[in-house]
Amino acid sequence: MENCIFCKIVAGQIPSAKVHEDTDTFAFLDIAPAARGHCLVVPKVHAAHMDDAAPEMLASMMKTAKKVARAISSAQGNASYNLVLNNGRDAGQVVFHLHLHIIPRFANDHFIIDWEHAKRHASYGGGEMARVQQDIMKFL
Amino acid sequence: MENCIFCKIVAGQIPSAKVHEDTDTFAFLDIAPAARGHCLVVPKVHAAHMDDAAPEMLASMMKTAKKVARAISSAQGNASYNLVLNNGRDAGQVVFHLHLHIIPRFANDHFIIDWEHAKRHASYGGGEMARVQQDIMKFL
Repeated sequence: MENCIFCKIVAGQIPSAKVHEDTDTFAFLDIAPAARGHCLVVPKVHAAHMDDAAPEMLASMMKTAKKVARAISSAQGNASYNLVLNNGRDAGQVVFHLHLHIIPRFANDHFIIDWEHAKRHASYGGGEMARVQQDIMKFL
Repeated sequence: MENCIFCKIVAGQIPSAKVHEDTDTFAFLDIAPAARGHCLVVPKVHAAHMDDAAPEMLASMMKTAKKVARAISSAQGNASYNLVLNNGRDAGQVVFHLHLHIIPRFANDHFIIDWEHAKRHASYGGGEMARVQQDIMKFL
């Protein structure tokens, strides 16, 4: 898509530190990494959000993510990693071409996902969990 | 697998607020949510880590995640969400049965992924990015 930075990276119009490419996906180092070796996996065909992505595209992204994550782990010596996909502005999506972050993790590193603070705010009171379940299931 | 809490949830031996089930996957509300409507998608067959999961299993998880995420968004009114998979202890994995978090997101909510702090620590100096790229590509 015109003016999409990741489409331009996939097309080679903007240089990137590519680590993997196949028919459906392209993987490269994030230029502003949350950890050394942090990579992004993108579909070659433009899709802004999850809802624009065919299941086959998501399957290809995960297949590539598994393969690249293993290579990152071998290179960087990390036993752990996070896969993170930010879908939508309020989730932290900045580039609107779907991308999956692979972030190598070490004990006591600097990448913080603050679950505990959020959990204190979101815990369910009596009966609330069942109501949320029912609300979601109306759409399934 | 014996003594795996998620295997017991899939088998119905431990109750859960299930929202979706199909041949390969099972999705339910997280009992300690980072946001109301926070769900987990797990494969029915036990796999501790990404490396234990067949690509087809990961594809099924993503297909379910897309479907459930859309239903959560319709029910909770969120336009955004994060998909997060914690692979390994240093990435925050606590239950060693692979699971994908779907976390509904709103502007100014309480779930924080602190990219900026991590980026200040991980930024590449001259030539470093190319070296990391080459290190990873040795394993691809």
